[in-house]
Amino acid sequence: MSIKILLTGGTIDKHYNESNGELHFVSTHIPEILSLGRNRSDCELQELMLKDSLAMTDADRQQILAACQTASQNQIVITHGTDTMVETAHRLGNSSLDKTIVLVGAMVPYVFKHTDAVFNLGFALAAVQTLPTGVYVTMNGSVFDWDKVKKNKKLGVFETH
Amino acid sequence: MSIKILLTGGTIDKHYNESNGELHFVSTHIPEILSLGRNRSDCELQELMLKDSLAMTDADRQQILAACQTASQNQIVITHGTDTMVETAHRLGNSSLDKTIVLVGAMVPYVFKHTDAVFNLGFALAAVQTLPTGVYVTMNGSVFDWDKVKKNKKLGVFETH
Amino acid sequence: MSIKILLTGGTIDKHYNESNGELHFVSTHIPEILSLGRNRSDCELQELMLKDSLAMTDADRQQILAACQTASQNQIVITHGTDTMVETAHRLGNSSLDKTIVLVGAMVPYVFKHTDAVFNLGFALAAVQTLPTGVYVTMNGSVFDWDKVKKNKKLGVFETH
Amino acid sequence: MSIKILLTGGTIDKHYNESNGELHFVSTHIPEILSLGRNRSDCELQELMLKDSLAMTDADRQQILAACQTASQNQIVITHGTDTMVETAHRLGNSSLDKTIVLVGAMVPYVFKHTDAVFNLGFALAAVQTLPTGVYVTMNGSVFDWDKVKKNKKLGVFETH
Repeated sequence: MSIKILLTGGTIDKHYNESNGELHFVSTHIPEILSLGRNRSDCELQELMLKDSLAMTDADRQQILAACQTASQNQIVITHGTDTMVETAHRLGNSSLDKTIVLVGAMVPYVFKHTDAVFNLGFALAAVQTLPTGVYVTMNGSVFDWDKVKKNKKLGVFETH
Repeated sequence: MSIKILLTGGTIDKHYNESNGELHFVSTHIPEILSLGRNRSDCELQELMLKDSLAMTDADRQQILAACQTASQNQIVITHGTDTMVETAHRLGNSSLDKTIVLVGAMVPYVFKHTDAVFNLGFALAAVQTLPTGVYVTMNGSVFDWDKVKKNKKLGVFETH
Repeated sequence: MSIKILLTGGTIDKHYNESNGELHFVSTHIPEILSLGRNRSDCELQELMLKDSLAMTDADRQQILAACQTASQNQIVITHGTDTMVETAHRLGNSSLDKTIVLVGAMVPYVFKHTDAVFNLGFALAAVQTLPTGVYVTMNGSVFDWDKVKKNKKLGVFETH
Repeated sequence: MSIKILLTGGTIDKHYNESNGELHFVSTHIPEILSLGRNRSDCELQELMLKDSLAMTDADRQQILAACQTASQNQIVITHGTDTMVETAHRLGNSSLDKTIVLVGAMVPYVFKHTDAVFNLGFALAAVQTLPTGVYVTMNGSVFDWDKVKKNKKLGVFETH
């Protein structure tokens, strides 16, 4: 029984752009994080897009939903920007898929020394293998049901809604 | 519903000893890892010992078992050396506690750049919150039942027994 | 004989701003870098400003020059943004101070895993202790005279002019 | 005018041996450190041995001396274990070579998060380009003449003799 990891971008996957000192997308770090964690669970990665979640459109969310539906796996992790993670979770939660879907991201990109990406991805990978069918957000060492979570932008944390 | 984290040492918690170039125990890194992961789940840490698991005695395992029994929490993570993690898991598994107990460690200490400690602790923290009553080993991105796992020392991985 | 380190900001000292995903200034990392390098040479830090060097004004450069002039030390390291490092070097070089002044910065902030900040600061600290009176830019493992260096923005490197 | 970097091993270049939890030699990290520092100075690396400096023999020191003599470069950095760095420096210093030779190492291996290797190598690379003919030890952000330095093993620092 394998796991599908759908990549959509978000803070977790941003790189440093030396030419202008800003952050941008180049390529994903998720394989490197799995390797660092010496992951041996059977994961299949699929990159849907590498986007800041504030830039995600309805069409993007439709694409994510379609990828969940067509995946042969019943365990799906979605890496996602934190700003609209809850919105995407709603879209998926309202679609009543018979799968375990876990959305995860990071408050600090993987390329920073003080990133939470590695801890979070480890957490999500356990959650997807152990939770019953449903859609979940996993952040801050916590599992949230898709319809009972919101991001507190002021504190930079996810909370029960 | 909070989580008890019992610390027993192991590779995950070793430091570099500059005076002789070897690794030894000084103090635990687990609070730092939880902080890095921005963990907000309610965890209570209890340091039982900081030992290489090859040096663990029956009395040490008895102490770990007793700490699981007397803990007010039903969700318990135990950080542990990998060499005898399975042995301790057996001791706990045979005791039929009505709790969810997850043993976790690292192949590379937290103080190294290429450590798996952060990923593993994130993984364990999700596992303990989502798994049913029982004793488990969580390593390599996988959950193992206590009586169906062994360490493959040659490859440095945990496998189904 | 001690060394003065004048801090002016630049890429080397930027932090990650979680609320908007951009980089900004909070406080300096230079003491942490010196500590990492186990520096025992006698350094006195003075923070003049924490600015992106593109935002530096004539008044800022005047302040840097004045700090060089009034410093009791004859060996001065200046941490500086790379974009106008050469401009500041010219201002100092044209002032004919009887001191050894070394400007240094980083292409990647200290907070990133792949930062060049630590290597560069180590390099600058040796350069300031060993070079004759004059104004120098030290980047890419090289020492440049202030009037013979330019930044190649396309390649992100410093070159002989 | 290029720089020769002679590699002899020492703490700076040790790896973690997962099978026994000790440190050992596998391959050198010096190219990775130079790359991290975005070094563009012309360096030619030559690996003589990868040894703990406590295990160095007279023959090893003879080999290092010979490599210094036969190098076409006049600027030579030698990476070396700290325990007998001073002894090797004496051997070279007594040989009156007409070159600038800088010995450098680390108190904490490069593979650790809190390594001083990157700072030290940056420091050494500036020192070798700027110091007059002679043999030097560069540690702790300081330049020491070969015949005026000793390692204080208790404090783990190099001091003027």
